[in-house]
Amino acid sequence: MTLNKTVTATDPTGGRPVVPSRGERRPLGLGEIALGPGFWSTLQATNAAATLEHCESWMERLGWLANFDRVAEGRTEAERPGWSFSDSEVYKLIEAMSWEFARSGDPGMDDGIRRLTARIGRAQDADGYLNTYYGHPNRPARYTDLEMGHELYCVGHLLQAAVARLRTSGPDELVEIARRAADHVCAEFGPGGREGICGHPEIELGLVELGRALGEDRYVDQARLFLDRRGHGLLRDIPLGRAYFQDDVPIRDAHAWRGHAVRALYLSAAAADVAAEGDDDELLAAIEGQWDWSVARRTYITGGMGSRHQDEGFGEDWELPADRAYCETCAGIASIMVSWRLYLATGDMKYADLIERTSFNVLATSPRSDGKAFFYANPLHQRVAGDVASDDQVSMRAESSARAAWFDVSCCPTNVARTLASWHTYAADVGERDVTLLQYASARVRAELGDGRVAGLEVETAYPDDGLVTVRVTEPPEGSMALRLRVPAWADGAVLEEGGRQRDVAPGVAVVDREFVAGEEVRLRLPVTPRFTWPDHRIDAIRGCVAVERGPLVYCAEAIDLPDGVGLDHVVVDTSVRPADRHGQVVVQGFVVSGADGSARWPYLSDADVNRPPTGAPIEVRLGPCHQWAERKPTAMRIWLPTLCP
Amino acid sequence: MTLNKTVTATDPTGGRPVVPSRGERRPLGLGEIALGPGFWSTLQATNAAATLEHCESWMERLGWLANFDRVAEGRTEAERPGWSFSDSEVYKLIEAMSWEFARSGDPGMDDGIRRLTARIGRAQDADGYLNTYYGHPNRPARYTDLEMGHELYCVGHLLQAAVARLRTSGPDELVEIARRAADHVCAEFGPGGREGICGHPEIELGLVELGRALGEDRYVDQARLFLDRRGHGLLRDIPLGRAYFQDDVPIRDAHAWRGHAVRALYLSAAAADVAAEGDDDELLAAIEGQWDWSVARRTYITGGMGSRHQDEGFGEDWELPADRAYCETCAGIASIMVSWRLYLATGDMKYADLIERTSFNVLATSPRSDGKAFFYANPLHQRVAGDVASDDQVSMRAESSARAAWFDVSCCPTNVARTLASWHTYAADVGERDVTLLQYASARVRAELGDGRVAGLEVETAYPDDGLVTVRVTEPPEGSMALRLRVPAWADGAVLEEGGRQRDVAPGVAVVDREFVAGEEVRLRLPVTPRFTWPDHRIDAIRGCVAVERGPLVYCAEAIDLPDGVGLDHVVVDTSVRPADRHGQVVVQGFVVSGADGSARWPYLSDADVNRPPTGAPIEVRLGPCHQWAERKPTAMRIWLPTLCP
Repeated sequence: MTLNKTVTATDPTGGRPVVPSRGERRPLGLGEIALGPGFWSTLQATNAAATLEHCESWMERLGWLANFDRVAEGRTEAERPGWSFSDSEVYKLIEAMSWEFARSGDPGMDDGIRRLTARIGRAQDADGYLNTYYGHPNRPARYTDLEMGHELYCVGHLLQAAVARLRTSGPDELVEIARRAADHVCAEFGPGGREGICGHPEIELGLVELGRALGEDRYVDQARLFLDRRGHGLLRDIPLGRAYFQDDVPIRDAHAWRGHAVRALYLSAAAADVAAEGDDDELLAAIEGQWDWSVARRTYITGGMGSRHQDEGFGEDWELPADRAYCETCAGIASIMVSWRLYLATGDMKYADLIERTSFNVLATSPRSDGKAFFYANPLHQRVAGDVASDDQVSMRAESSARAAWFDVSCCPTNVARTLASWHTYAADVGERDVTLLQYASARVRAELGDGRVAGLEVETAYPDDGLVTVRVTEPPEGSMALRLRVPAWADGAVLEEGGRQRDVAPGVAVVDREFVAGEEVRLRLPVTPRFTWPDHRIDAIRGCVAVERGPLVYCAEAIDLPDGVGLDHVVVDTSVRPADRHGQVVVQGFVVSGADGSARWPYLSDADVNRPPTGAPIEVRLGPCHQWAERKPTAMRIWLPTLCP
Repeated sequence: MTLNKTVTATDPTGGRPVVPSRGERRPLGLGEIALGPGFWSTLQATNAAATLEHCESWMERLGWLANFDRVAEGRTEAERPGWSFSDSEVYKLIEAMSWEFARSGDPGMDDGIRRLTARIGRAQDADGYLNTYYGHPNRPARYTDLEMGHELYCVGHLLQAAVARLRTSGPDELVEIARRAADHVCAEFGPGGREGICGHPEIELGLVELGRALGEDRYVDQARLFLDRRGHGLLRDIPLGRAYFQDDVPIRDAHAWRGHAVRALYLSAAAADVAAEGDDDELLAAIEGQWDWSVARRTYITGGMGSRHQDEGFGEDWELPADRAYCETCAGIASIMVSWRLYLATGDMKYADLIERTSFNVLATSPRSDGKAFFYANPLHQRVAGDVASDDQVSMRAESSARAAWFDVSCCPTNVARTLASWHTYAADVGERDVTLLQYASARVRAELGDGRVAGLEVETAYPDDGLVTVRVTEPPEGSMALRLRVPAWADGAVLEEGGRQRDVAPGVAVVDREFVAGEEVRLRLPVTPRFTWPDHRIDAIRGCVAVERGPLVYCAEAIDLPDGVGLDHVVVDTSVRPADRHGQVVVQGFVVSGADGSARWPYLSDADVNRPPTGAPIEVRLGPCHQWAERKPTAMRIWLPTLCP
């Protein structure tokens, strides 16, 4: 795993998605960290080898790429393939390819980016406007449906793609296209311009990052202006209500995330960005407050967010149904984006903890192991196996237990692709005189500390299967430094070994602050024994249930592992017996409750009829990591299992 | 309460909504039963005094009535107020007014029906087509959106209104309008005609009943043809799937209700009707099987049906969230319609049990006590009080705890109106030589038995507040008859007193089969002591909870009855203490669990952190009947209350 030479190790802004101007922490660039063999590099390799081509091929097949050609050639029609946001999938693909090019150096990736850039560029209007749904002959006019048109949303993703290109390969045509598009947005929607906002936040994220990357304050100012305009009922009311697109309450006054989950989270991520650029502590505190509240009351054990199918949105506090959990993959990714920005601003490990949980249990769950099918929604309880669509079909969000090759609304696959390609930028960071390991994976790190000194590390681990993380200091800086290792909140009983000493370390961060000798090792042992996890009593949907976790992984039971005739509805776990580790699988003990509980006719029972406590024949239930569910065949599944009263 | 003389007691088809040609039971007509003061007559009086005028006034105000004028006067525009089914609300209003006219004899009601009939009639095309959304200048053409256009649905309600008019006042212009419309439907969609069905079942119900009422077999045949065409993918696929409108599986092969709840239930009601007309035991058995399965696994304790907001539809087995329960008022009414038809076909009391449960806990819950606002959805757990819309506003289904005066989609108020106006036709029925009391309310009954003899009864009761039902035989027939009284499934410990004797009677039906003397009384004592009710262990959403019932009423806790600072999420019920009756209110004992359960930051707890069993300060919780919830002020509410492990 060589570090990519295109981005020099000393370029402080090289190859990273988010570079705040202010904050406690500095993120590493793709030139400063590379993963070795393991959980995440496997996902990255599959992403590179299969997913990127898969995405491009589907977009070409469905005509989403040709949409750009049609604009360029003046051939736009009243009929057009794809939703109003299909352009953004192309941009997200280019972003993913850019990160991947920096990660692997594959010249084919670079060629692909240039090809796609050329097609996109030809479709840009002279004034910088770029959109294949609106604003051309036989198409609706520009900006006639800000509520649901996704026009600015698409530009936001274009800008993020350009940032990725700029920070990995340097300025090129894509960056110029983005600059013209950003200038157009500022001219159209700036002070004195159109008093509008986009129904789907994203432009704000793109403007801030492009502004940072190009040193253009007015892009950041425009993002701030969009944020300030929002929350006052500027958008028209819709049946789902203005909370759907967070236009009911200004971002500074919102105490929790509500409405459409991806919109809410992209908006809060943008607000964190704007707060960092403007040194706006009040705004930062508002977003931190939203995170605290929503993580405590509106988030699933997987880290998934989104309790309702109807609006793909957050529910009320404690409204966390396992079966109708929406937990859109894009919302999991958006959650990671918010947490990352809050981590960079504050250095608080709770944010890295949630990034870990969401990465292993939502992000890693979405793609099939061959990288060619995905989950859009990530329920915690699949009641019926459902149909298997062929890999040749476009799915309407796939409510069965089969991942789908592509979707009518296909935001998740490209979001997975760009996040996996750049995932290792979440794995470590630096401070003034420290290197901090945030996520555990085999890796090589060579980074510039805040004080200018360079430090190099090698990390070896079989995490998450094994809790041992070995850190070898390959290039110690002159003098002392702090080597900091996140100890996850779940890791009760972690042990640190360094310099011949061993000590217990509590959840938070374990620090070794001294001079290091080249080649010396520090070892962190995280306890990955399977454990029971219990729900807060206020979460109605899973009262009386228990879950099993192992390290960062949430486990689940699949119906295909049960004996014939025994359904997931019939199993009750006996928590007086600890879950047992069996070669990466976990086994729990329980028993099978009969199908009928009193009268079969009516499920609401009198004192006389109710069978308590439930009893039945003993059974051993095999559990596997939820990110692997439905990999073998379509199946019912449960994360939360009914149990006896504790 | 005089019996209306317009419909003679000896007219066996007078004034009743459903008159199957075959079946075990004969329903009573409005001329054969009248309610006395009590729960249901109060609702009927408010319906008559306030709701009917309220509905008409809103329809006039919003322009739904003027839509007919615009068609009649050739003034139809591209813009038109109301959804494509707004015509049906007018028809349902006329149906309600027709039942009400027969119930009360109010001549103003008759005048109103004639006025509305005249406006409707002028809009009918020469070939019998009648619809103000489609088929006229500047409007979309006829039958271009059978999936979602509701064209035949509207005709179905027209036919049901005409049946009501015919059976209460005799043939008049409305009946002629309906006949022409039905003839048009048969010509257009009959054998050799357009191979289509309506996305929303209802035309089938109207055709069968009009066919019965006019003796027109070809209307019944057309209904059967529509049923047979359905279930083979004739309608185009939609994102919600063909199960939404039950076009995925033929009605005979469906084992459970699925998809949009009102559609599923109207369809099954129509199938029961078609089965009765055709002596089709196989089809009847299929509907009975759907009832059994869905009532056992997809129905709420209130009788409500519909687990999902997204498609207003049924969920999977055991998917019964209390908070996101949809339980559309119209679905409750449709459930009553299905149960009634199955009861008439079989005489099985389980159907009358469900009619009682749904009547008291869904139908009676929807209207506000003044009859001028309604619930559309009927959740079993209202997490937040929500906003109060003014009575002057049109609501988008009102997800707050306030009933709404009118809705953008306003099918529920008129459905409530027509059902309340004719509700007493569910209260009793006759067989060859029996009179059977199915629903308990003060009433006078004078009916013709199957063998031609007349029997007269007076019923006195303060049900549901009191469990004593006194039946006085005012006009005994010559010879013996069977007086049959339904003993509800919940009524453990019911006692029957007659002829100086007393005996225990089990749930099902209590029979007194002998000669009767004029004036003698039979008394049924139903035990209405409050009782705890427990959920089947397979219902995830309410595991670990308990409900309270009293007689047919389901009870609930409202947050406004709790002390300041104590929320519904904080209360745990102690079921070792029986619920206590306090003047119609019920009180349970419990305690208040603290707000934080272990760490407040993350609600998924380790063994060390979880607080089990919960403890806290004792509290007494007042419960009221759920049909009265949110009558005082907006409030959070729960039917299912967390409890200690039993």
